[in-house]
Amino acid sequence: MDVPLGPDAERALSLLVQLCRQPSIAAQHIGIAEMADLTEGLLRNAGFSTRQLSVEGVPPAVFGEQRGRSPFTLLLYNHYDVQPAEPLDLWDSPPFEPAIREGMLFARGVADNKGEIAARLAAIEALRERDGELPLTIKWIIEGEEEIGSVHFGEIVQAHAGLLRADGGFWEGSGFTPGTHRPIVSLGTKGLLYIELSVECMAVDAHSGGAAVLPSAAWRLIGALGCMKGPDGQVNIPGYYEAIREPTAEERAALADAEDVEDRWKQTYGIDRFVDDLTGQALRERQSFGPTCNIAGLDSGYAGEGIKTVLPARARAKIDFRLVPDQQPEEIARSLRDHLDTSGYTDVRLGILGSCAPVLTPLDHTFARHVIDVAAGINGATPQVVPIVAGTLPLLGDMRRHLGLLGVMPPTNVSHIGSRAHAPNENIRLEDLDRAVAGALHLFSGLGS
Amino acid sequence: MDVPLGPDAERALSLLVQLCRQPSIAAQHIGIAEMADLTEGLLRNAGFSTRQLSVEGVPPAVFGEQRGRSPFTLLLYNHYDVQPAEPLDLWDSPPFEPAIREGMLFARGVADNKGEIAARLAAIEALRERDGELPLTIKWIIEGEEEIGSVHFGEIVQAHAGLLRADGGFWEGSGFTPGTHRPIVSLGTKGLLYIELSVECMAVDAHSGGAAVLPSAAWRLIGALGCMKGPDGQVNIPGYYEAIREPTAEERAALADAEDVEDRWKQTYGIDRFVDDLTGQALRERQSFGPTCNIAGLDSGYAGEGIKTVLPARARAKIDFRLVPDQQPEEIARSLRDHLDTSGYTDVRLGILGSCAPVLTPLDHTFARHVIDVAAGINGATPQVVPIVAGTLPLLGDMRRHLGLLGVMPPTNVSHIGSRAHAPNENIRLEDLDRAVAGALHLFSGLGS
Repeated sequence: MDVPLGPDAERALSLLVQLCRQPSIAAQHIGIAEMADLTEGLLRNAGFSTRQLSVEGVPPAVFGEQRGRSPFTLLLYNHYDVQPAEPLDLWDSPPFEPAIREGMLFARGVADNKGEIAARLAAIEALRERDGELPLTIKWIIEGEEEIGSVHFGEIVQAHAGLLRADGGFWEGSGFTPGTHRPIVSLGTKGLLYIELSVECMAVDAHSGGAAVLPSAAWRLIGALGCMKGPDGQVNIPGYYEAIREPTAEERAALADAEDVEDRWKQTYGIDRFVDDLTGQALRERQSFGPTCNIAGLDSGYAGEGIKTVLPARARAKIDFRLVPDQQPEEIARSLRDHLDTSGYTDVRLGILGSCAPVLTPLDHTFARHVIDVAAGINGATPQVVPIVAGTLPLLGDMRRHLGLLGVMPPTNVSHIGSRAHAPNENIRLEDLDRAVAGALHLFSGLGS
Repeated sequence: MDVPLGPDAERALSLLVQLCRQPSIAAQHIGIAEMADLTEGLLRNAGFSTRQLSVEGVPPAVFGEQRGRSPFTLLLYNHYDVQPAEPLDLWDSPPFEPAIREGMLFARGVADNKGEIAARLAAIEALRERDGELPLTIKWIIEGEEEIGSVHFGEIVQAHAGLLRADGGFWEGSGFTPGTHRPIVSLGTKGLLYIELSVECMAVDAHSGGAAVLPSAAWRLIGALGCMKGPDGQVNIPGYYEAIREPTAEERAALADAEDVEDRWKQTYGIDRFVDDLTGQALRERQSFGPTCNIAGLDSGYAGEGIKTVLPARARAKIDFRLVPDQQPEEIARSLRDHLDTSGYTDVRLGILGSCAPVLTPLDHTFARHVIDVAAGINGATPQVVPIVAGTLPLLGDMRRHLGLLGVMPPTNVSHIGSRAHAPNENIRLEDLDRAVAGALHLFSGLGS
């Protein structure tokens, strides 16, 4: 150990090592039941009454409840499952044998998101030791299928809506700004429409000599994509921009107050400019309140080394739209299908692989306001408020739909820009564990008073 | 043996089995020297004086020469190398253990093109037995690198131009029409420009949440492709169509006389129409004298099953242009580079992976005319004359450039539409061996008289 940690972070580290030693790979059905039991046991040790919530045959969600001094009830969300560890040969130490090197802890799931489970748990244990009870009532749901798309989470929440009822939610957290370590409170996520466009023009590939008279799936796909979005970056699906609301003055002010990360991004991605030469406030607004139509994948024919003269029978594209308030994925999918048809691309199949509306907790919502105010005391630094993050968490929609519950992503997360979530050598910095435990402790205390 | 063969075809079969038992995979450096020696030995047995032609360190071409009654000198071209046999588990019998099943012979290289070597050789042996000498002078070059792109063939031809001098050439042959077995004489091939377009917009892939402000390589590639060719199928590279000459009246007449293969093609590729609803003569002219701009491959990001929300750093396309007289690949590559630049795609890299001009022997050329006339006697059927085939053979350019030699693809080839050249279970029909030997025998006799 080459970084001195406070006693609460030492406790979190010991919990985190336990959590990371237990594989829990949802996609591969590895260690799920064991991990649910381990998690439930740790919650019970920390004073929770617990049970496992499940629908038939799927990994259970672990649930715990602990009454505190204040009747104010906070619902925490986390997940105990992790991504597969492959490719194993790219790990410098085995993925399920947590190892500390140069002030960092390496293990699969350490950042996403067992680190935060450990930080919140350590804060709860510390509060109980100090005061004999929690300052507020905490419910905690920890699911086991997040990394495979939270496929049954909505069902579980709906089936146990009464049990999960709360006054506010803490989702997977946001952490701290990379430069000056200001606590971050994020209020919502973009929506997602993930589709696959595919074209099949022939039963089998042909020798490319036939291209003069045989149909080309790849060119059909290029045509279909070209009618969706122009070289200017504008999406040409009718109505695509119609439902979008402008950011409010408060949202704009929050963005203006955010830490400048332009150079950090440029360095990370090796770029010298952003799209449309955006910078400053315009860049922040585009990143937060701009919708996207992104090509996540293209595939047709032969793309290996050298020459293969083939006319491919099939082509496909994976496309993800990140949606902003108040765009609705179903409407956009419908409009896209119409647009393809009227543009002559009836032969292009459109499959919907994922769909999720944007969910925002308004900046002036009582709970959000309260969290922001309390967070102001964490580091002696004004919190950075992020009205909407660029990613998507389906659980926010589930919570709103089935519980009517709004929440935030609080500064209790333990990861940094180099955490390699989902990749080999996933890691956290121990110094961030210190910050996350302090953040959780401060927020639980403050919300209870 | 369940198909009765004539004695010449029996001889060809026996030679073919010997040739196919010897692996000769240029790409994997397997059996090349042994195969060159075996081939040279078979030529010597058939009365040729032989040698091996080589440039330093590459597979030799086998050369043989045999003077005949007439001083007319015919240069035969074949290749003794074959494609790799992988994937081996898809073969019903081992690729280098020739096996006869249901009137077909299975082995790697049996169709492409050891079958034709055996047929030509059997015809030569039969003529020598019958007449004591050949009716004409035959030179024969059999190279060992055709399946890896004839990379040194031009060098070899240039280095031995005097030795190879001839009055006409027989390239790899064309065989017989699938329906009525009319002999086919093909006179030329299209050219080829094979390029790779690639774009790299970032150093690493990003989470697709960044797509609102980070550059997309895939969309850049779609834009570049869109400016090359429109949804109407027209190529928009300036000057692309300028150098194209119209087919002559004779070429049109030859196409009009061709066997109708529309239904065969529709069945093979599972289509119910050709591009632009072409049919009949218009279809034949497009297939023969229409240039192409074909996407052979597309690759970017994630194209596997399910969802991956990634903004890929890189995208690439493989594109092959089949060129018709008098398009020149270098000019088109230059014009495309200019076109991309003036369209704003200076960041799209253009790599040239292959380049070859179209080569045609005119329909009224003396040698071509002579072969067509002689071929008329083969089956009692008028030959089908193909002015230009849709594929590309770089050797035609080498022969013209270094020897000033024109030639044809004569009806001596042994393959059928289901021969699976380059694929597992490569095969010929034994009945086609019969035809090819008869074709070669007839042509050698006729050209010598």
